[in-house]
Amino acid sequence: MSYNEKMYALGSKRSVIREIFEYSKRRAAEIGTENVFDFSLGNPSVEPPCEVADALCALLTGEQSAAVHAYTSAQGAPEVRRAVADYIQTSFGVNISPDYIYMTCGAAASLCIVLRAILNPGEECVVPAPFFTEYRVFIENAGGVLVASDPLPGTFQLDLSDLAKKITPNTKCLILNSPNNPSGVVYTDETLRALCDLLKKRSAEYGHPIYLIADEPYRELVFGGVQVPYLMNYYPDTFVCYSWSKALSLPGERIGYIAVCPEMQDASELYLAVCGAGRSLGYVCAPSLFQHLIPHIIGKTVNLDIYEQNRDLIFTALTEYGFECVRPDGAFYLFVKAPGGDAAAFCEKAKKEEILVVPCDDFGVSGYVRIAYCVDRERIERSLPGFLRLAKAYALT
Amino acid sequence: MSYNEKMYALGSKRSVIREIFEYSKRRAAEIGTENVFDFSLGNPSVEPPCEVADALCALLTGEQSAAVHAYTSAQGAPEVRRAVADYIQTSFGVNISPDYIYMTCGAAASLCIVLRAILNPGEECVVPAPFFTEYRVFIENAGGVLVASDPLPGTFQLDLSDLAKKITPNTKCLILNSPNNPSGVVYTDETLRALCDLLKKRSAEYGHPIYLIADEPYRELVFGGVQVPYLMNYYPDTFVCYSWSKALSLPGERIGYIAVCPEMQDASELYLAVCGAGRSLGYVCAPSLFQHLIPHIIGKTVNLDIYEQNRDLIFTALTEYGFECVRPDGAFYLFVKAPGGDAAAFCEKAKKEEILVVPCDDFGVSGYVRIAYCVDRERIERSLPGFLRLAKAYALT
Repeated sequence: MSYNEKMYALGSKRSVIREIFEYSKRRAAEIGTENVFDFSLGNPSVEPPCEVADALCALLTGEQSAAVHAYTSAQGAPEVRRAVADYIQTSFGVNISPDYIYMTCGAAASLCIVLRAILNPGEECVVPAPFFTEYRVFIENAGGVLVASDPLPGTFQLDLSDLAKKITPNTKCLILNSPNNPSGVVYTDETLRALCDLLKKRSAEYGHPIYLIADEPYRELVFGGVQVPYLMNYYPDTFVCYSWSKALSLPGERIGYIAVCPEMQDASELYLAVCGAGRSLGYVCAPSLFQHLIPHIIGKTVNLDIYEQNRDLIFTALTEYGFECVRPDGAFYLFVKAPGGDAAAFCEKAKKEEILVVPCDDFGVSGYVRIAYCVDRERIERSLPGFLRLAKAYALT
Repeated sequence: MSYNEKMYALGSKRSVIREIFEYSKRRAAEIGTENVFDFSLGNPSVEPPCEVADALCALLTGEQSAAVHAYTSAQGAPEVRRAVADYIQTSFGVNISPDYIYMTCGAAASLCIVLRAILNPGEECVVPAPFFTEYRVFIENAGGVLVASDPLPGTFQLDLSDLAKKITPNTKCLILNSPNNPSGVVYTDETLRALCDLLKKRSAEYGHPIYLIADEPYRELVFGGVQVPYLMNYYPDTFVCYSWSKALSLPGERIGYIAVCPEMQDASELYLAVCGAGRSLGYVCAPSLFQHLIPHIIGKTVNLDIYEQNRDLIFTALTEYGFECVRPDGAFYLFVKAPGGDAAAFCEKAKKEEILVVPCDDFGVSGYVRIAYCVDRERIERSLPGFLRLAKAYALT
C-alpha cells in the first residue's frame, strides 16, 4: 500500500462536524451566508476582548518585538508558564509551579500529548458519553482503546454505576469534559466527588493510578453562577488540558496548555513524558506570539452574557415548540432529542430549512443532535420559524 | 508502568541542541547574555521584514479582524492555500492547485504528518547524513525505521553508491534537506538528477513508489547565486515540507505547509492521507493569524546578506585558524571537523571559552560540530579570539 490506510480513512471520512462545516461553506456560496443557519461548528461568534488585539499589536511593535517570534523552550516561555501557574494558584488554590505547565497548540494538542505520554498499546481510556468525536481518533492514535460510559438518561450527568463497570484493571485514564461538548451539561460537585472516590478506590485496588484528564476549553463558559470544580483539588492524578479557544474566541490560533498536578505520584517523570510526547508529535513549541500574549490577558474572557442570552433564546423557543432539550449550564451547545429518533434523518430534514445541526451518534449517544448556538442572536431569531416548521412536521406542537 | 517509557525517554533525554540551548540560558543568567557565544540553536537572528508586523497589525485591526482568529478548514484557509499554490506555480513552474496544499504548524509538523500519512509499521525511511536529529524521532513515532546513508567525505554531497545500497524493497521514502542542516551544503543539480533517476528505477523495480520528502525550511537561504532545484520538477512522487521559520524569522510561530506533487500517482488519496494524519496528531489547523499573513508576505525574506556576511566572516576566520570547515552555500550553519576527532570533547573545551557549539554525532556524522552563525555579527567577532585560542590549544595554527 502506498499510504497508511488508517490515515487515508481518517482523511477521507472527515468528522461529521467538519463535513457539515464544509457543506455550509458551499451552501453559503450558493445562497448567501446570511441564509444558512449553520449551527454545526463550535466556532465562537463573540469577538475577542479588545485587550487581545491591543496586546498583540503592542508585542509586535514594542521594544521586544524581535523576540516575540523566536523559538521558546519546548515546554513554553518561562514567564508564560509562570503566569499560568500563578493564575491556577490564585484561582483554584493549587500550589503549582511553572515546572508543571506545558504550553500547547490548543486543547486537541494537549489531549494528544497527554494520551501519548501515558498510554501503552492496548490500554483503555474511559470516556463518559456524550463525548467530542475526536477523542476516539486521539486515543487510538496513542495506541489506546476508547471505552464509552453511558450517561444518566435525561440529565446526561455521569452514571457512576456504569462507570464502575467500565473501569477495569486495564483502565489507564478517563477523560472528563465539563462543561460538556456536546451536551452543555456541567457535572455536579457531588457527582465529581463520587467519581474521584471511585477512581481512588480502583487505583488502590489495581495498584496503579488511573489518570483523570480534565478537558476544559469551556471552563469559563457557564451561566447563572454555576461552578465548575477544579479537579486537582479532588484527585491528585489529574492532568488539566486547557485552551483559550473558547474563553477568548481564539480557536484558530491553537494556544493552550497542559497542567500536571504536582501532587501526582511521579509528577516530574510524567511531566517529562509529556515533554517527550510533544516532541514526538512534532510540536516544537506553542505559537510564540500567542504565548507571549497570555500574561497580558490571562483571566479575561469574551462577553459571556451573549452566549447566555443565546442559550435562553434557543432553549426557550425549542422547548416551547415541543423539542426535548437538555438544559445547558455551560459551553455553547444545545443537545436536542431528534424527533422521530433518527438523528441523521432529522439533520437532513433540517437542512431543507437551511438549518445545519450535527447528529450525535458519533458522540456516543444516538438519537440526539447538537446545536452550536455560538452564532449571532439575529441568526438564531431568523432560524426559529424553520425550527417551528420542523416541530410541526414532526407533530411536536 | 504509569507512563509511556519511550515518551519519558524522549522527554528526559532532550535533543542535544535543546540541552545546550537550556544550558546557554542558565549561563547567560550567570555571566550576561553578551558574554555567552551561543552558536547552538538555529534561532534566526535577522529581524523579520517590517511587512510582517505591518500586515499582522492590519489584520488585527482591520475590518475582517473578527475572522482572523477563527478555525480555518483543517487543510488551511482556501485563499491562503491559493496564494501558496500560485507562488509555487509562478516560482517553480509546477502546475499545482490549492487542493494539494496543506497548511501546517511548521516544518516539524509537516514532516510528522507526511511520515504518518505514508509509513506503515516497519517501513524504512532513508536519510542522507548528516541530518537533523529529530528526523529519527519523527520517523520512529510514525512506526518507521531510519536508515542513514553516508555522505561523500569532504564535500558532504550525496553518495549515490551508498544510497543505491541503502534503498531496498522495504524503502518507503527518503528525506532530503537542502540547504542542509547541519552541513550548510546545497546538493548539486547533477547529484539530484542522479538521485531521482535512481529512485525512479528502484520504484519501477520494486513496483511501488519511493517517496521523496523535500524538507525545505532553508530554501531561500542560499549565497552567491547558488540554485536549489525544485524536486517536483524532477520526480513526481515528491512531498515538499516548507516552513517560514527561517525565511521570515518566525520559528516560534509554527507556520508552514505540505505540498503534494499533483503528478504523483494517487495524489488525491495521498492528500487525504495527509489530512488524516494531521487530524490524528491533533493538528486542528495551522495558526490562523499567521495563515492569513501568508498572502501578504509570500516570496519576501529577511535580509539574507546578513547571513552571507556572517558566513564569510566565520568561514574565513576559522579556516585561517586551521579548522577544517565544509564551505556552506546555504542555511546558516558551519560544519567543522572537531580537532582531536572527538566532537563532544571539543564542545566541552569550547564551553570553557563560553563558545557553545553542537556535537554532530546525533546528526549521523561523528567527529564534527555545528556552528549556527545566525547571531549578531558582533557576537561572532567577539568569539573569534576564543576560537583562535582553541585552535592553538589543538596546535592547528
